[in-house]
Amino acid sequence: MTSPSRIDVPSQPVGRLGDAWRACVGTGRFDLALRRDYQDSLAVIQRDIGFRHIRGHGLLSDNMGVYRPYEWQGQRRMLHAFTYVDQVVDAYLDLGIRPFLELGFMPRALASGDQTVFWWGGNVTPPSSHREWADLVRATVAHLVDRYGLDEVRTWPIEVWNEPDLRDFWKDADQAAYHRLYEVTALAVKEVDTSLQVGGPAVSPGADDGWLARFAEFVEERGVPVDFVSRHAYTSGPAQHVPFGSHQTLAPAGRLLEQFAAPRQELKGTRLAELPVHITEFNSSYCPDNLIHDTAYNAAYLAPVVAGGGDLVDSFSYWTFSDMFEEAGVPTALFHGGFGLLTHRQVKKPTFHLYAFMARLGDEVLARGDDHLVTRHPDGRIAVLAWAAAGADGHTLRLSLPAAGDEVFARRSHVDEERGNAYRAWRRMGSPRSPRPRQLDVLHEAAEPGRSHLRLPVRDMRASLDLALERNEVTLVEVEPVVEEAPPWWDEGRLLGGGTAG
Amino acid sequence: MTSPSRIDVPSQPVGRLGDAWRACVGTGRFDLALRRDYQDSLAVIQRDIGFRHIRGHGLLSDNMGVYRPYEWQGQRRMLHAFTYVDQVVDAYLDLGIRPFLELGFMPRALASGDQTVFWWGGNVTPPSSHREWADLVRATVAHLVDRYGLDEVRTWPIEVWNEPDLRDFWKDADQAAYHRLYEVTALAVKEVDTSLQVGGPAVSPGADDGWLARFAEFVEERGVPVDFVSRHAYTSGPAQHVPFGSHQTLAPAGRLLEQFAAPRQELKGTRLAELPVHITEFNSSYCPDNLIHDTAYNAAYLAPVVAGGGDLVDSFSYWTFSDMFEEAGVPTALFHGGFGLLTHRQVKKPTFHLYAFMARLGDEVLARGDDHLVTRHPDGRIAVLAWAAAGADGHTLRLSLPAAGDEVFARRSHVDEERGNAYRAWRRMGSPRSPRPRQLDVLHEAAEPGRSHLRLPVRDMRASLDLALERNEVTLVEVEPVVEEAPPWWDEGRLLGGGTAG
Amino acid sequence: MTSPSRIDVPSQPVGRLGDAWRACVGTGRFDLALRRDYQDSLAVIQRDIGFRHIRGHGLLSDNMGVYRPYEWQGQRRMLHAFTYVDQVVDAYLDLGIRPFLELGFMPRALASGDQTVFWWGGNVTPPSSHREWADLVRATVAHLVDRYGLDEVRTWPIEVWNEPDLRDFWKDADQAAYHRLYEVTALAVKEVDTSLQVGGPAVSPGADDGWLARFAEFVEERGVPVDFVSRHAYTSGPAQHVPFGSHQTLAPAGRLLEQFAAPRQELKGTRLAELPVHITEFNSSYCPDNLIHDTAYNAAYLAPVVAGGGDLVDSFSYWTFSDMFEEAGVPTALFHGGFGLLTHRQVKKPTFHLYAFMARLGDEVLARGDDHLVTRHPDGRIAVLAWAAAGADGHTLRLSLPAAGDEVFARRSHVDEERGNAYRAWRRMGSPRSPRPRQLDVLHEAAEPGRSHLRLPVRDMRASLDLALERNEVTLVEVEPVVEEAPPWWDEGRLLGGGTAG
Amino acid sequence: MTSPSRIDVPSQPVGRLGDAWRACVGTGRFDLALRRDYQDSLAVIQRDIGFRHIRGHGLLSDNMGVYRPYEWQGQRRMLHAFTYVDQVVDAYLDLGIRPFLELGFMPRALASGDQTVFWWGGNVTPPSSHREWADLVRATVAHLVDRYGLDEVRTWPIEVWNEPDLRDFWKDADQAAYHRLYEVTALAVKEVDTSLQVGGPAVSPGADDGWLARFAEFVEERGVPVDFVSRHAYTSGPAQHVPFGSHQTLAPAGRLLEQFAAPRQELKGTRLAELPVHITEFNSSYCPDNLIHDTAYNAAYLAPVVAGGGDLVDSFSYWTFSDMFEEAGVPTALFHGGFGLLTHRQVKKPTFHLYAFMARLGDEVLARGDDHLVTRHPDGRIAVLAWAAAGADGHTLRLSLPAAGDEVFARRSHVDEERGNAYRAWRRMGSPRSPRPRQLDVLHEAAEPGRSHLRLPVRDMRASLDLALERNEVTLVEVEPVVEEAPPWWDEGRLLGGGTAG
Repeated sequence: MTSPSRIDVPSQPVGRLGDAWRACVGTGRFDLALRRDYQDSLAVIQRDIGFRHIRGHGLLSDNMGVYRPYEWQGQRRMLHAFTYVDQVVDAYLDLGIRPFLELGFMPRALASGDQTVFWWGGNVTPPSSHREWADLVRATVAHLVDRYGLDEVRTWPIEVWNEPDLRDFWKDADQAAYHRLYEVTALAVKEVDTSLQVGGPAVSPGADDGWLARFAEFVEERGVPVDFVSRHAYTSGPAQHVPFGSHQTLAPAGRLLEQFAAPRQELKGTRLAELPVHITEFNSSYCPDNLIHDTAYNAAYLAPVVAGGGDLVDSFSYWTFSDMFEEAGVPTALFHGGFGLLTHRQVKKPTFHLYAFMARLGDEVLARGDDHLVTRHPDGRIAVLAWAAAGADGHTLRLSLPAAGDEVFARRSHVDEERGNAYRAWRRMGSPRSPRPRQLDVLHEAAEPGRSHLRLPVRDMRASLDLALERNEVTLVEVEPVVEEAPPWWDEGRLLGGGTAG
Repeated sequence: MTSPSRIDVPSQPVGRLGDAWRACVGTGRFDLALRRDYQDSLAVIQRDIGFRHIRGHGLLSDNMGVYRPYEWQGQRRMLHAFTYVDQVVDAYLDLGIRPFLELGFMPRALASGDQTVFWWGGNVTPPSSHREWADLVRATVAHLVDRYGLDEVRTWPIEVWNEPDLRDFWKDADQAAYHRLYEVTALAVKEVDTSLQVGGPAVSPGADDGWLARFAEFVEERGVPVDFVSRHAYTSGPAQHVPFGSHQTLAPAGRLLEQFAAPRQELKGTRLAELPVHITEFNSSYCPDNLIHDTAYNAAYLAPVVAGGGDLVDSFSYWTFSDMFEEAGVPTALFHGGFGLLTHRQVKKPTFHLYAFMARLGDEVLARGDDHLVTRHPDGRIAVLAWAAAGADGHTLRLSLPAAGDEVFARRSHVDEERGNAYRAWRRMGSPRSPRPRQLDVLHEAAEPGRSHLRLPVRDMRASLDLALERNEVTLVEVEPVVEEAPPWWDEGRLLGGGTAG
Repeated sequence: MTSPSRIDVPSQPVGRLGDAWRACVGTGRFDLALRRDYQDSLAVIQRDIGFRHIRGHGLLSDNMGVYRPYEWQGQRRMLHAFTYVDQVVDAYLDLGIRPFLELGFMPRALASGDQTVFWWGGNVTPPSSHREWADLVRATVAHLVDRYGLDEVRTWPIEVWNEPDLRDFWKDADQAAYHRLYEVTALAVKEVDTSLQVGGPAVSPGADDGWLARFAEFVEERGVPVDFVSRHAYTSGPAQHVPFGSHQTLAPAGRLLEQFAAPRQELKGTRLAELPVHITEFNSSYCPDNLIHDTAYNAAYLAPVVAGGGDLVDSFSYWTFSDMFEEAGVPTALFHGGFGLLTHRQVKKPTFHLYAFMARLGDEVLARGDDHLVTRHPDGRIAVLAWAAAGADGHTLRLSLPAAGDEVFARRSHVDEERGNAYRAWRRMGSPRSPRPRQLDVLHEAAEPGRSHLRLPVRDMRASLDLALERNEVTLVEVEPVVEEAPPWWDEGRLLGGGTAG
Repeated sequence: MTSPSRIDVPSQPVGRLGDAWRACVGTGRFDLALRRDYQDSLAVIQRDIGFRHIRGHGLLSDNMGVYRPYEWQGQRRMLHAFTYVDQVVDAYLDLGIRPFLELGFMPRALASGDQTVFWWGGNVTPPSSHREWADLVRATVAHLVDRYGLDEVRTWPIEVWNEPDLRDFWKDADQAAYHRLYEVTALAVKEVDTSLQVGGPAVSPGADDGWLARFAEFVEERGVPVDFVSRHAYTSGPAQHVPFGSHQTLAPAGRLLEQFAAPRQELKGTRLAELPVHITEFNSSYCPDNLIHDTAYNAAYLAPVVAGGGDLVDSFSYWTFSDMFEEAGVPTALFHGGFGLLTHRQVKKPTFHLYAFMARLGDEVLARGDDHLVTRHPDGRIAVLAWAAAGADGHTLRLSLPAAGDEVFARRSHVDEERGNAYRAWRRMGSPRSPRPRQLDVLHEAAEPGRSHLRLPVRDMRASLDLALERNEVTLVEVEPVVEEAPPWWDEGRLLGGGTAG
């Protein structure tokens, strides 16, 4: 590594960070939210990161028990039951996070076919009755408004279905059928209250050629309400399967930002051009069993995306916050390549820390670069996020920061191949599939970032910060002036009573 | 009501209460234990009642993810995964309760047929390979011994399957097939360690004619290990269905005690005659949607059974501790006739209090009767459980208790049609299917027992306790000597400074 | 009791309740806030009542360790230390309550004399150096602004000293000396920031003749800043002492309201006439060992004061929230006549419930009377506070309430001589000075209000509510429409399977 | 540093560790235990260390409010009140720690003089009435037996007074007067129950010449009960005062062990020779304001003492667990040289970790040395405590450990001048006297030990462990066999889908 030239960080902001990066996070299916491990994990997430919304599949699937036809006095009748919906949403709000509602999948008794997706069997066929589907949507949204208030529910975006451009998620990937579903659904939502936000089409990258344009055309022609546009973003290649796992190549991280930018480009000139864009899922790999998710590589790879994505879209939702997930079945080992920022039992992965570091940045951006983001808090503290390029052999970054006083105190927190890396510890201890309590203690310890602190001198209202980053390191440095309160008589040299220091 | 004659309670014990009544409690399927509401409810149960073991279905069903065949290098191989088993058992032990293991149902990939039971689809067919089933059992038990220690697991009874005498729970209710399963399973358990306790046949009342005798004959002939005998007990008639509910007639409660007593009678003279008998399920109704479970009637009905069952068997396990259950699907209303001592969200039902009152009795029995059980604690406190006959219009009980000192303090706690009766409050407020937070507050308040206290004079080392019981009342009275510490100058009449009392 | 005529409660509000009643609460000396029992009690108080501010003595007394002169290099120097101040204020803010700062008493090393008040020895003499006192005040307030922010501290009223009109609390009750202290202190506060609120003179009733007028004259002449006026209110007569206790007569409760009203009357025409008035202490008796505080009499006595005081002043602060107090030494018994709404170990007294009931009233006042206060919430629910005259033999109240729908659900919570009355239970069980855990359980149970609920029919948009109040009863009734969700097939008569109801 | 030769650790134990090291810990005066910060700290201590007993001054001082004479009907009478005693002892037992009772100091109203010790004024004069003192002792012990049970209280040693050989703690250091007090007290204790353990004389090093021998002679002559012998141990020289602080020289740590050993030597041949010996206080410095307590030096200095003291005495009680102390007044800064293992607000000092590391050792000692203690757990895990000599410039230790399998996993935790050293971080950030929340976060992070892990190969059933210790480092290494569960198909090289590792 040759020593790079020092970057002069301006003392006045060049922009704002915004909070698109934490506007939303993904989750496994809705009823998993009833679990304790899930809620414990979400509590950790909210304490250290603080997402605003949470989005997952399965709100209307049979496990949630909403759609309940029955017979009475010889006639078919309908009940919509919200026993579990309320338990989940109550829990979300208690944890300080709001639903980003995704309407799907199809209740078995309302489905037009048997096709399912995932281990847990989400039915992906159109409704056998669009009228009953509309009733279901209307009853659900009306119930939520009734229980939580319109002011609250108005802040919850409502997305119609998931990845209808993929045959796995929507029978035959039939766009016309999706348009019909979208129209019926959007109108049902707006019947409850026109101020509610509805949108779509939640397409997946790869199979989405022309989808957005055709969707725009359709809603324009039919005058169908749309309040936001959504799509997903992933950069992994085809899955190479091993038992209980997958390997994939990854495109450069910049491709994720290109996918973020795509909707506004594709919708230019349409009625949807100015609408909010939500990336309702993104990650490196789309496989729930790819160990890349557990690594420091993933954190370094995503650092520029998380640091920069907010310039392109209104939200981009990391898929997902926890390994409590189950799309590919019950995990057979603690580390199994799940999407989670946390494993089961709340072991933090390196990408968790990328987000937790983001949450400690200030809102004023002083400088941005390929390997850094320098921010300032309202009280003047400076917070620097820096990262090595994923897979590179380390990296050096030299900054000149604006500073006050004689000295500054710098607190560094970092993850890399060794620090904040429970996966590495887990491998080293023998990859225990279901770790014992003592092993979990080691993993919880190993998952904590490396931490250090130092004082830097200030000269000409500048402090020089030199950062040598390890392989796949993501670092946070927080800098504030030293206010010296040590009294004049304190002398470490007298600790042992004389002049001989302890 | 005519006033009954006073019962003289002896001052010396006539027996011991034992703890068969709290040796075990039932639960919905194993993976429900991952839920937060479930664990919150179990925490309440353990704090106020303190069961020793917990038994439910589904340890080996697909939701637990244990049985995991896979392909590798062209060959079928096997993994047994305990990700969820460990999460559940860790939670149980943390809550101070131990598993009473039930081995079942059949993993889909190991099943010989498609027949399932319950909304959640437990497969009830014999294994397609008894060798692989034995491997599964052995691996599971060995894993538990490895993780929790042999001393611990030795205290967990292991029961083979559930209600094989019913066609719904075991294909064709084929006893020979059950015997084969039992033998293979029991041997697999004993291979792990011969000190582990294994038993069966967990038969259901009604269809069990001759089952126990034939089971005894079989194990004797084949020299198959059996450490305990188990069966179930219910007293309800055929279900009269309404939407999301059932009504049933109930036989007199004494029939439950007859069912408890049956195994020892039927096994007299066999090798199994002296074995422990576990009633691994009992309740009034066997339907998970019969509102009788939610009523004070149920508590009064079961009071003599819970108070007296310990004379007949080693355990009798109330089916179940919580309404988090799902055998008939996701409940459509908070009160829906579930088996639980608690509803979702921890609202206590009258039968909860029957058990909580039992937990406050002493171990020495001073007197027993059709309407009372009088006990004494090691420190001399007397605790009286009394009940009205279920459905009767109230009841009077007059006791003469042994007592010391000049006066005793009596603390009464009671449930009836109005007190400790959240179901009544819920009906009164309009039967809200998914109550709002404020309504839940009312229900939690209404679920608390009525409480009162008084002083009684002691004459000739006797205190007279007269109890007027309301319809379906169950009452606990705790009596202890008053030690008067009020100083001589305390005079309520001077509260307002003169002689005019406040 | 003759039946009173029915009161027609209007359907439109006649006023607003405001929150003067919970604007502030009193506390024992500042360093007691370091205790766990104190904080546990305050947590209960804040959960069920939610006061905005808290005021107590001793911020600057030696136990808080703020004023710390020392010698260094032969010279006297000064340190102001906030180790404990910060621990207390951090705890307050964490519990959702803000300080109402009282500046006092005098640090021993800054005092001009030895006179102290209370068991714990608060020094009540003027400063030996007004300059050092001003430094102390300035340093303290500046530290708080620095730590908690000006926006926060600006909401904390700052009161100068306590009851300087009493010789026990201010040497010789010397008003000129108080004026000097006030001036120096107010100026020191305003030096930190002119937007901070400072006031006084915190006089005690009885010895305060002409104090307010002279205070107004003084500050006017000298141009001294005053942002609010404060005084105290008590209605008890001279103390009749018994060991560890006092008895006193009580004037009618209306006298408290007269004392509340006095400052505005006395200050009419002065520059202080329009200032906020804070009653920074009030209670029935001013003795910390008068058992009246523990009774239902106290709740009934204060009910019209707490319900009506907000019409007269900006705050009136119940003295005090907890029995953790110590002005008369360490209590020798759990119930000892302390001021607390809670005893040690969080046993609720009847007056606690008066406040907790107030906290459940709506902000719109529909009707007011000598025995009731009827309010409405934004969502239409009606909440009625009713009370029997203190010491009367019971009371009947008949209301006609505006109502919607066919039926309303009424939830009643009440305290009286028997319910919500832990003192009564404690006396009955023998007045145990330091109750054992089981006795504390009984007391916690006995301290809960009586609770019941019923349905009332609605006719002509009116529901009739008849309340028979017991001796010293305070009752809360909350009324809301029944929304009936019970399905048509539910029939309690079929609970036992036939037509014979359970 | 030259590389030392490798030490061969035997595979069979050479002794047992015992638990004298955690048999007791010291605390500030009894009523401080009412504080929340104190209890929060004790909870941390008990979770990570788990002391058995806790000993501090002031049980009978006025702040606890036990001794309460009063007048009634013209006569002096006596009440003993346990309001606070019970709150403290309840809290201790809830936290899993038991009192080691020290009977003292003198209630003011029972004292024969005015002499006090400490900022908080403990009266150190003999009782004015030995009869009333005996009543007080008897009443206190009898109350404890009554509340907590004889079986419990029998496990609490009862020590008579504190450091009577020092004029500061006992008027004139009058040994005859102490002997009289001891006799009266011991007899009062034994009147409650002869099985209770009473002892003394709790002498301080330095002024204790001949005390033990004379004490032995006295009790032998008079037949006074003695169940254990106690003394204190410190190694610091005279205090060199600075404002709010002291500096002292320290004798070599071995002197502490010599002081531990002294009682048995001095008592050889007396009736007390075989009694348990309790070192009821020890530390490096006896000053509560000596910053040495906050350093890694202190941990390294005490490591051989804590590791080896159990060979000499039955307990040695670190003075004290928390900086919540106040003998020298309210601390003026977070780090102020307090005795605590924890500062206020639960910041762990290096010596805390020395104890926490001890708590993770096994009970079988495999090897001992000047710089190490190697232990084994029942399950075969090996735990190594190693330390650098205090003040030395680092140290190298090379061990050969018995091992099974192919590889072992080693988990290292360590504190030194930089790691696990919040004092260093606090100095670096400017020595903030009352740190803000964010600064406290940094301190809590900085207080955590350094942590790392590695795999070591096993050859010939031996693993080589090389430890390079930094200045003042104390290290714990825990070693266990690797059980490799990674499946054969896992290949980190395929993480990115090809052969190019991530």
